[in-house]
Order: sequence, then structure tokens, then C-alpha cells
Amino acid sequence: MTLSVDVNADLGESFGNYIIGNDKKIIPLISSANVACGFHASDPKVMLETVKLIKESGAGLGAHPGFPDKEGFGRRYMDCTNEEIYSMVLYQLSALDGIARTVGVEMNHVKPHGALYNATFTDENLARVIAQAVKDFNPNLKLMGLSENNLVKAGEEIGLEVVHEVFLDRAYENDGTLVSRRKEGAMITDSKLAVERGIRMITEGKVETIDGQDIDIKADSICVHGDGEKALQFVKEIKKALEAKGIEVKKM
Amino acid sequence: MTLSVDVNADLGESFGNYIIGNDKKIIPLISSANVACGFHASDPKVMLETVKLIKESGAGLGAHPGFPDKEGFGRRYMDCTNEEIYSMVLYQLSALDGIARTVGVEMNHVKPHGALYNATFTDENLARVIAQAVKDFNPNLKLMGLSENNLVKAGEEIGLEVVHEVFLDRAYENDGTLVSRRKEGAMITDSKLAVERGIRMITEGKVETIDGQDIDIKADSICVHGDGEKALQFVKEIKKALEAKGIEVKKM
Amino acid sequence: MTLSVDVNADLGESFGNYIIGNDKKIIPLISSANVACGFHASDPKVMLETVKLIKESGAGLGAHPGFPDKEGFGRRYMDCTNEEIYSMVLYQLSALDGIARTVGVEMNHVKPHGALYNATFTDENLARVIAQAVKDFNPNLKLMGLSENNLVKAGEEIGLEVVHEVFLDRAYENDGTLVSRRKEGAMITDSKLAVERGIRMITEGKVETIDGQDIDIKADSICVHGDGEKALQFVKEIKKALEAKGIEVKKM
Amino acid sequence: MTLSVDVNADLGESFGNYIIGNDKKIIPLISSANVACGFHASDPKVMLETVKLIKESGAGLGAHPGFPDKEGFGRRYMDCTNEEIYSMVLYQLSALDGIARTVGVEMNHVKPHGALYNATFTDENLARVIAQAVKDFNPNLKLMGLSENNLVKAGEEIGLEVVHEVFLDRAYENDGTLVSRRKEGAMITDSKLAVERGIRMITEGKVETIDGQDIDIKADSICVHGDGEKALQFVKEIKKALEAKGIEVKKM
Repeated sequence: MTLSVDVNADLGESFGNYIIGNDKKIIPLISSANVACGFHASDPKVMLETVKLIKESGAGLGAHPGFPDKEGFGRRYMDCTNEEIYSMVLYQLSALDGIARTVGVEMNHVKPHGALYNATFTDENLARVIAQAVKDFNPNLKLMGLSENNLVKAGEEIGLEVVHEVFLDRAYENDGTLVSRRKEGAMITDSKLAVERGIRMITEGKVETIDGQDIDIKADSICVHGDGEKALQFVKEIKKALEAKGIEVKKM
Repeated sequence: MTLSVDVNADLGESFGNYIIGNDKKIIPLISSANVACGFHASDPKVMLETVKLIKESGAGLGAHPGFPDKEGFGRRYMDCTNEEIYSMVLYQLSALDGIARTVGVEMNHVKPHGALYNATFTDENLARVIAQAVKDFNPNLKLMGLSENNLVKAGEEIGLEVVHEVFLDRAYENDGTLVSRRKEGAMITDSKLAVERGIRMITEGKVETIDGQDIDIKADSICVHGDGEKALQFVKEIKKALEAKGIEVKKM
Repeated sequence: MTLSVDVNADLGESFGNYIIGNDKKIIPLISSANVACGFHASDPKVMLETVKLIKESGAGLGAHPGFPDKEGFGRRYMDCTNEEIYSMVLYQLSALDGIARTVGVEMNHVKPHGALYNATFTDENLARVIAQAVKDFNPNLKLMGLSENNLVKAGEEIGLEVVHEVFLDRAYENDGTLVSRRKEGAMITDSKLAVERGIRMITEGKVETIDGQDIDIKADSICVHGDGEKALQFVKEIKKALEAKGIEVKKM
Repeated sequence: MTLSVDVNADLGESFGNYIIGNDKKIIPLISSANVACGFHASDPKVMLETVKLIKESGAGLGAHPGFPDKEGFGRRYMDCTNEEIYSMVLYQLSALDGIARTVGVEMNHVKPHGALYNATFTDENLARVIAQAVKDFNPNLKLMGLSENNLVKAGEEIGLEVVHEVFLDRAYENDGTLVSRRKEGAMITDSKLAVERGIRMITEGKVETIDGQDIDIKADSICVHGDGEKALQFVKEIKKALEAKGIEVKKM
């Protein structure tokens, strides 16, 4: 039996004259792409161009819905009602899906962005509302969320296929959530250590927390970044290490 | 053989706390609804609620894409490239279509809004770009445009079913375009006269222009307004007049 | 000695084609106007027109800065950094002040809007950041906040003149904050009772909380609403009651 | 007598997470900075940071108001009414001015951005509305516009001090307007030639048009770009050439 893992990145975040990321270089290296849908980033033209790039590469296409806040890049939590969350997710899935179908690509998954993702760590209700919007839109979509956390649990409860996501460059708390970037030690800056942690997550299902405790973790997909040469280099390193261990990189 | 005509109105234009129109009262009176898609008006929650109202009524659902300018309500022409027009139309069709499919309603037609509609009167290229976006998204959608003008011509050229729209409360130029609202005599304020003009358009295929000349016109769909009691009253009058003439009101 | 109180209302909240409120009717009835600055509501044209109306009436002009979220009308809390809060308040004060000076009106006070106001009830840091922005912009501006709460305290600490605001149509908690609108009994719907509570706040400095306890309250300014005939009627009632008690309505 | 010229650049165009330009490197090289005001680019935090950088450098501070269209970066013409133009310019001047006064910098000039600038080449009414807004806000502000064209003429007519701007890297039509970027030969890509043209504009008051004709031109300020190493290099070249000719670089 062969072990496999998905490698995903957030993409398509440019906006008009504003360029973010290095999509043309990162897309060929990943198996799944999370594409911004025009609320926290992107615009219709960027979305269309991004979907075309993904079609060429064969990576899995995912929607990456976020809060309607380009100035804050979707990283500022907004206190919305259930109805607002449900409809903003539905709208963004619809927009990307229609563009994708027009280009001839099928949407494969959904991963909320930024504060909309992070807020689910402690807000079960929010996780459920997002999962419901995904299911109502298309029950065949996979829902990606923080490993062993509320979003994947909410998806599972209503019968969605879920994807447990892990972060190699982030420290974990004992409860399996990410250590806040504002705390010391939140980022794993040593790329060799990050790769080792990733391999251990996949092969042993364990990660050492910031307190030195081992906890269980499920690693269906690894999140990587595509912004800057250093990030691209790291993606190549992790892929090489996976190959060396006989772990296949495979679309979720 | 029975004559028939469609009666359409622009709807779903509220935005957050801002309410425009009287959707609950106008929807039962019309056969086709043009629904704002979040660019010149509306938001995801309003779109979802509007589609549900239309589902109940059985009216035909249409997308009403506009320029990305809520402050100007899509009525300020924006000088965009072909790629920007194509992708902004595609995005808006996609957003509404996905919401509609989730609710269980099929999208039936597309009518551009405001300045995006008016600019096609003189800009054949713009008309072609819009028509192409509609066709690429879904070739079964009907494209509604000003009667005998560029948008319907562009649609026909690429094989879309088109809908010739007429305005009962607007004066016409000799070339079949609408008299600008800035000119005197642009509006037909006498509702009895407006109704008569409408009946003549449908039964004779003629309208008298502002210069007193008779021109040919094709009346597949009548545009009505739903904002205010007077507008609702007018819709009732025109429907009564159509009935009296044996003309059926029927979804395009 | 004559007792006096300020009567303030939120105004200038229309946006493009979207009309909110009844500014022409409410402005002559109040002594202070809180004017939206284009982030949660309004646009440059509406701001200019509103300032002109206020100039005619002689009411005190106040800035009403809010979160940058027109869809949520500034009522959705956004988790911003100190720098973001400071600069968004400064920007909004500047925009209104420049328009006012051009028209020939002096800005008199600042009152944060919606979630930016409410969040200060429990967030002392937020209150301090807002107060500092006001002071840095113009130390002669008065800062209005919930009576006896963080915002007025933060203003006082740095030497701003502050204005304690009270709500006649809202129930109070024992700690002097407003009962959340989501709780039963949050709104005082009986206008006679509301008026009585207001008079008591001004003359005795006391209000009965939702638990039946009397707490101290300072009533420098009464918040009234201008949206709808019923609201206008209530403003007239409260002004009549104030007059009957010999309490002067006076700009803060 | 010493010849002198101003060197200006557009700055402060970043927006939230989106970075444009190289402000820290370009600001020390120029004598006047045109700062985006949050409509076509920038946000309150970026504006505050930019004004602080300009304060350090001693460059002249100018407002750079544009159309409310971040997606199009203010480069898409929007067909607005006089009232909309007047109030959007007034709002943007006010916002920047208030931030500047808070930081302790005086605003020196105004230069419209992108499509708002270019549209004045053929629209005298637009030029007049912009000039009037500038004057009404502060009659001591200098108004910068295309050399010998409508904007400076409109400013002069109402008594504003005006600044004739020239472009070294752009070809000119016989009427003194810029050759559209869509035409061949619009850009002067040879930096040596661009510098020579600039020196001739300043010393002789002449420029050769795309048709080979010499026309009069007034060169009060040279527009340079700060985006990219090549642009910075060009600014250094032109400054060196000016120095060699004994032409002083001086704030307008």
C-alpha cells in the first residue's frame, strides 16, 4: 500500500493592478489550488485567468471563500449572522463554479480563507453554517478544514467528504489548533524541521505541540505557500522529502 | 392564434440595510424577473431571498448584471476592456445561477443593467462581448436587449435566443433607441397613452417616435417598474389592457 | 439655574440611489447631528448635501465614523489592529471636516457608529485608540460615548471634553451598558415610559435597569432616531416633555 | 538666473495586503509627491504612513484624487455628474489634508489621477469642476495638469496657481495631448532620448510631436515613476542630466 498526501496552496489573490503571489510557478508544483472568489481578494478577470492556469496543470480546483473585506484581505474577523455567512459562502462557490464550468474545469473542494477559516477553530456554529452552504450547493464537494477540528467535523456530520489539513510551518497547541501568530514560537522557521514534522504527521499521525506533548493529527493535505522564491523552494523540498519516503503527492 | 407578451421588471436591488423596490408586490404581477447580481446592487443574502420569492411566483428568473459600482447603481458608464466586460458578466451570471440551482430554480434569461445596457445602443463591440459571455456560460439562456438593436443582433448572430424589449413609458428616436432622459419629452407620463403605445407595439409592430415618425418595433417583452404604488398601479393597468385585447402575458 | 440637554440623531446615511432616513424632517428637531462619513454609509455627494442642511439648521455637526462595511451598515464588528482603527477614524474625521470647512461649518463632536461604538463597551483599548485619533486630529472636538462608559473615560483621561449619551428606548444592564437587542426586554416600546425614563435620567441622574435596580447615569445628550413618522413623533414628544419640565434643548 | 523644475511621482498606492511601488526609495529622489486618497488606491493606514514618509523627506505633498474604482485603479473612465465629480474630489482632498495636518505636513498641490486626469484633455467642463472643488477647498493649493491643457487653463481662470506637467517617456500629439498608449510609438523607451526631450522642454519650451512637428510646451514639473529598479534608475539619470545643465530640482 502506498501512502499519499495532497499539497494545497492559496492562489488567484491578485486584484486589478495589484499583484500577489507567483501563481504560474506554484501551480505546477501542487495537487490542489484554493482560488479566491472576489470577496477578500481577486476579481472576475483574475478568477478566469487562474482557472485557465489550473486547467492546464491538472491540479484540483477549490473555492476559497472569505469575508467581504479586500482592505483586510479577509483576515479581519467580521461578526456576521448565520444567514450572511451562508449566503456569502454560497455566492462565492457559485461565482467560481460557473467560471470553472465555462472553462471546462470541475470544482473539487472548498476551503474557507483567513479569518473565516480561523474562526471555525472555536465557533462550531460557524463551521456548521459553512458546511451546510457547501452541501446545499453541491454535496459532492470536499470540505477542507483544520485537521481534527470543527470544520471537518461539521462536514462529516452532514455527509460531506472532508479533508484534514496540516501546516508544516506552524506550531500547534495541545488542543490541535494553531498557535497564534502573535505568540512567540508560532512559526516553524527551520525548513528541515518543518519537513520532518510533515513526514511524521503523514507516517505516524502525530505532531509535537508547542508544549512538547505529542498529539494525534490526520494529514490529508499539506498547506504550502506560493509567495516568494523561498516559499517555492520549500515546496520543492517537501516534495523531494515525500518522494524519498515513497509518499505520493495526489489530488485530494 | 393567441398573441402573447412577456412582462419583465428589475428586482432584488436592496443592499444590506438599504431597501429599494417592492419586490413582494411586483413579483406576482410579472412573468420575468431581472435579478441584480451584487455588482451595481444587491448582496448575497438579498439574492438568495429574491430567488426564493421568484421560485414561489413561478416567474422566469433572469440575471441582471451591471457595472461594479453600487454608489452609481450601475448607471455610470465605465470604460472597461473586453476582458473585463466578459469576465464581469460571466461572474455575475455564475453567482446568480449557483444560488438559483441551490434553491431549485432554473435561470431563463439575461438582461444587462443600466449603463451596461444603454451603452450597447451605440457600441456593437460591447454587445458582442456580452452576448459571447452569455453563450459561453450557457447557450440555452435567452438574451434580452433593446428591440431591434445591437444586443439582440449580437445574440442572434451567435445563435442565442433573443428577446426584444420595449418601453411603454419612454419616447423613441427615429433609429429605435430611447430618447435620453436629459431631453424634454423623454418620458411618457400619461399612463393611458403609454398603455396604448404598448398595445400598438404588440399588435401592429409599430411605435411613433418623438419626431412623429412611425418605425417598426418588435415587442417580445414589456419593461415595467416595481418601485412605488404608482408603478404597481401602472402594471395592473397594462395587464388589464392586454387581457382586454386578448393578449396573453407569458414568460419569454 | 436651568437644566439643559442635547438631543442627537444619526444622519446622512443615504448612499447613491439608496435612501435611508428622513434628514430634512429630523434636522430641525435636534441640537446635534452625527453624520456618516462614507465607510458604513453615505457617499461624498450625500455628505456635502447633509452638511449644507445642518448649516441651515444650526445644529451641531458631528462625525459618525464606522467600520468600512456598507453591506453590514457598520453593525458587524471587525477585528482590526490599533493602527487600522486609528487611521480609519482619522480618515473619516478628516473627510467630513474638510467638507464642512468648505461649506463653512465647524465640526463640533465625534460619535463612533454601530459596532465601533458598541465594541467600546467592553474594549477599553479600542476606546483609547478612538479617543487618541480624535485628540490628534483636533483636541477641541467633543467625544460622545455611552454614559459613564469606556469611551468617555478614555476621552477624559487625555483631556478631551466628553459627552455622556443616554438612550430612552433601550433597557440598561446593571453595569450601565445597553441590554443586547437579542435579549427580551431590550427595547422600551412604550413611548410614555421612555420619555419618563429620560426626564428622570436628566433630573435625578438615575435609571432603573432591566433587573429593577437603580444605577447612576449622566445624561448630557439623548439619542433619538429620525427614520419613519413614528420616530419623528417621538422626538416631538420628548421635546415637549423636556419643555414642560423647563429643561432646555441645547447643543452639547 | 537659475532654471528650475519640479520632479513629481505618484505614491502611496498600496492597499491593505497589496503592495505597489517602492515609496521609500522614490520619495528621497523627488520634490513633489502625489498621494492616492483611498478611492482608486490606498487605504487610511497607507495614507498615514505615506504622509509620514513625505514629512521626513521634505517633498511637497499633493493629493492625487481618482475615480472610486480600486479594481480598475482609477484608470477606467466613469461617466459622473458634475456634483459627483465635485464632491468626490472634495472628499479626497479633505481626507488627505486632515491626515496631513494631524501629522504636521501642509498640503501643497492637487493632481487628478488616471482617467480623471486624462479625461480633462478633451472635457473642459470636467476640468472646471475639478478646479472649482480645489479652489473651494483651499484657494492656496496649486493645481497640476497636462501642460498647456484644460486643467491648468481652468485653474488659471479661477485664480489658482497652476503647474504645467510634462512627460518624458510619452509621445505627444500635435495638439499637445499625450499619444494614447494603445497607439504605436506612444512610449519613449530610449531613456537617453527621454532625458534629452525633457531638457529641451525646460530650456527651449519645445517638444517634437509624434508627427515630427515642434510645439510649444511649458515644463513646470516632470512626472517620473517609482515602480521598479529601472524607473528609479531613470529618475537618477534625469536628475543628473538636470544638474549637468545647471537646472535646479525644486518643489513647485
